Amino acid sequence: MSDKKLVQEITSRDEDFAKWYTDIVTKADLVGYSGVKGCMVIRPYGYAIWENIQKDLDKRFKDTGHENVYMPMFIPESLLQKEKDHIEGFAPEVAWVTHGGSEELAERMCVRPTSEVLFCEHYKQIVSSYRDLPKLYNQWCSVVRWEKTTRPFLRSREFLWQEGHTAHATSAEAIEEAERMLEVYADFCAESLNMPVIKGKKTESDKFAGAVSTYCIEALMHDGKALQAGTTHDFGDGFAKAFDITYTSKDNKLEYVHQSSWGVSTRLIGGIIMSHGDDSGLVLPPAIAPVQIVIIPIAQHKEGVLEKANELKTQLLGLGWRVKVDDSDNSAGWKFSEYEMKGVPLRLEIGPKDIEQNQCVIVRRDTREKAFVSLDELESKVAELTDALAKGIYEKALANVNARTYTCKNIDEMNAALSEKGDGFIKAMWCGEEACEDEVKEKTGAGSRCMPIQQEKIAKTCVCCGKPATALVYWGKAY
Amino acid sequence: MSDKKLVQEITSRDEDFAKWYTDIVTKADLVGYSGVKGCMVIRPYGYAIWENIQKDLDKRFKDTGHENVYMPMFIPESLLQKEKDHIEGFAPEVAWVTHGGSEELAERMCVRPTSEVLFCEHYKQIVSSYRDLPKLYNQWCSVVRWEKTTRPFLRSREFLWQEGHTAHATSAEAIEEAERMLEVYADFCAESLNMPVIKGKKTESDKFAGAVSTYCIEALMHDGKALQAGTTHDFGDGFAKAFDITYTSKDNKLEYVHQSSWGVSTRLIGGIIMSHGDDSGLVLPPAIAPVQIVIIPIAQHKEGVLEKANELKTQLLGLGWRVKVDDSDNSAGWKFSEYEMKGVPLRLEIGPKDIEQNQCVIVRRDTREKAFVSLDELESKVAELTDALAKGIYEKALANVNARTYTCKNIDEMNAALSEKGDGFIKAMWCGEEACEDEVKEKTGAGSRCMPIQQEKIAKTCVCCGKPATALVYWGKAY
Repeated sequence: MSDKKLVQEITSRDEDFAKWYTDIVTKADLVGYSGVKGCMVIRPYGYAIWENIQKDLDKRFKDTGHENVYMPMFIPESLLQKEKDHIEGFAPEVAWVTHGGSEELAERMCVRPTSEVLFCEHYKQIVSSYRDLPKLYNQWCSVVRWEKTTRPFLRSREFLWQEGHTAHATSAEAIEEAERMLEVYADFCAESLNMPVIKGKKTESDKFAGAVSTYCIEALMHDGKALQAGTTHDFGDGFAKAFDITYTSKDNKLEYVHQSSWGVSTRLIGGIIMSHGDDSGLVLPPAIAPVQIVIIPIAQHKEGVLEKANELKTQLLGLGWRVKVDDSDNSAGWKFSEYEMKGVPLRLEIGPKDIEQNQCVIVRRDTREKAFVSLDELESKVAELTDALAKGIYEKALANVNARTYTCKNIDEMNAALSEKGDGFIKAMWCGEEACEDEVKEKTGAGSRCMPIQQEKIAKTCVCCGKPATALVYWGKAY
Repeated sequence: MSDKKLVQEITSRDEDFAKWYTDIVTKADLVGYSGVKGCMVIRPYGYAIWENIQKDLDKRFKDTGHENVYMPMFIPESLLQKEKDHIEGFAPEVAWVTHGGSEELAERMCVRPTSEVLFCEHYKQIVSSYRDLPKLYNQWCSVVRWEKTTRPFLRSREFLWQEGHTAHATSAEAIEEAERMLEVYADFCAESLNMPVIKGKKTESDKFAGAVSTYCIEALMHDGKALQAGTTHDFGDGFAKAFDITYTSKDNKLEYVHQSSWGVSTRLIGGIIMSHGDDSGLVLPPAIAPVQIVIIPIAQHKEGVLEKANELKTQLLGLGWRVKVDDSDNSAGWKFSEYEMKGVPLRLEIGPKDIEQNQCVIVRRDTREKAFVSLDELESKVAELTDALAKGIYEKALANVNARTYTCKNIDEMNAALSEKGDGFIKAMWCGEEACEDEVKEKTGAGSRCMPIQQEKIAKTCVCCGKPATALVYWGKAY
């Protein structure tokens, strides 16, 4: 395949963002389409990204005292119905199992859309004293929600995720946990995905089914649409009351536990693509890139080239880098395009002349800057360039968020900003009424994304009704 | 809780092995019972064992060139039906999803009992040339089989496992892969689970639905019953023909691929329990124990004891050991029982007198041997004792297999051995006829477990019909 052909295959990002996205997920070998409607095949390169995300997050969860468990994938209908808001939120979108083999089940079961009720049932069994608290559990699994329209990573009928579920003695501790995990998620997004996020709280109408409060991290994609990248929930004692989960306190009183839950999913991969990708393909954050450095031997048939390439690979592997040498028959140009498509952070070229001069060429994926690096300085330079790339793509994404964040005082300003500058976050004040939320969305297309934790008072009155405002809200169109 | 009470709670292994097993899985906090019939809750301690198994096996898979992927959890009925033997084998035991939300599906789907057909569908899409081969994929997931009677880890409606699925250019390569992965499994069982296994091939009647050959590793539990611990399958080109998976060969001919699959599951945890456990609880192989060394401070209120315990913890953590200090208010005796129940390989006791003498006490879980260890030699001694324990429990399990393996020439000898010496493996010759296999099982209760790779000719005639024998078979009752 010629280099030209490869490049032509990708739709330009600014021409058709949706098609560009679809091109990337297939051309970079992240997913395959499946005959199972609305579900995706996650291919080795896509799954390796998820494995790196899992490993990184799992360490953060364990460092904050959490333990992993595994709950059944099925939920009997009567169990799902125990918490009223929860069943109302999820019943319309679950997959129902009605038969085991040739026999009809006495009670149908859904495939878990989320596992609150299973954790509640378990906590009821294992919690009896204040000594048993807190319980800080997490599970890695797949869940199913019967979506009508689906897109790889962003919205699919089955997706992979983690769901943390915790039980605490007091309301304050449950809130603290929900807030702590929001920080863990935000730090992970910034440090490991190089993706800036807004930390906030959902409005009443946008809360998780059964929650007292839902916190979220919202990211802004290159096209100005928002992506809910993760949520944490304070459940208060609502589930505890529905499931009768009590404990005996230090002063020997029977109390309800207070709970939280929190989750992120393979959706984060969609966030990475739409935050950093460009017209040549993926741009991967070094922390989660399956291959961090690809070594391309130049004139590899010449004596000593392949040996040197493999020697550099061994050296870099020894330092903990994820490295690959591509010694295939494909042309160097083809290889350059291929690894740009796959978003490998650094490309290291080494040929006979480089060897003579004890150097190599390193090209950054994001800026395509070319550096001639002495092999004596290889180790420090690789670390330096990787850091610079991680910072660079974060800054670029942040600049996009900043350029696309508009402060507005009324609906007309919102519409003007959106039509003149394109989609983005709109910061505007809100009175707290759901009617205004609905009206803003109807008139501008932008829904409430969150009430940021860092509140500002940019006006005194609601962007919609003009009555006194109670909170600053980020509004936007969302994935 | 007094020490006495804790010990009394476990049924003796030789008195009632089944009840002993159930006691262990609950008292050692491995599983919780769930309202979802036939499914289990895997609790943190049980799941940590699985995580260690996964990590170890995953490295072995990657070292042999395999990549991880993720396929949908659902299989449309028409897809499952494509390979005749496969659907016949699995249809009676799958869970059927018939509704998404409130709508009935146009075609019902089962929750994967295994994913051959999904991998076939994918391979058909991505394989076209000999350059695309081999494909060496693996997936970690949960699968569902609608079992009637269930027991934690050994047989449950949902279980966690890995399934390798590979596609090759030739029949020889597919067979080689099935044999290679059998070795990987056997090595893992011996080295990391300290569990001896017999490598063999299943008879025709016991093959996987759709396979040309099924290979297996069979372990013998303490009670003399066999446990199928893992299987690998050579599929030949049967699935390839049913799914039309072809590639263009080097000499430009259209050929069918040849495939293999292989899997082990959370059943391995049942194998560990029943291979090594005793009347005080679990005995865990060091390689997969969530805690390898538990440090118990003696007279912990005395000055310097807790500090020293934590200092030793830091020292051992630094060497890569998984270490825990139990500084709870429970008595030392209670703690001893608790960590014996949980099968922690080494218990390290440190008290004021030990500190004075610059020593500690280390007790091995398997033999309960007590060693006084100078703190100057701590690092080498811990390594030495851990190795000795790993070898010790392997030898003990092997001695059990040897003592319970009987060589028999006819049905009467089989029945005599089983009734005099108890359940075990019976080595006996077989003519190759399914009728004889059935008759042996009917008359002795022992089914054919496998034809061992290492064949011996212990007699010339079939143990059942007396006609010329074609193979040595291991027979036994099985979990």
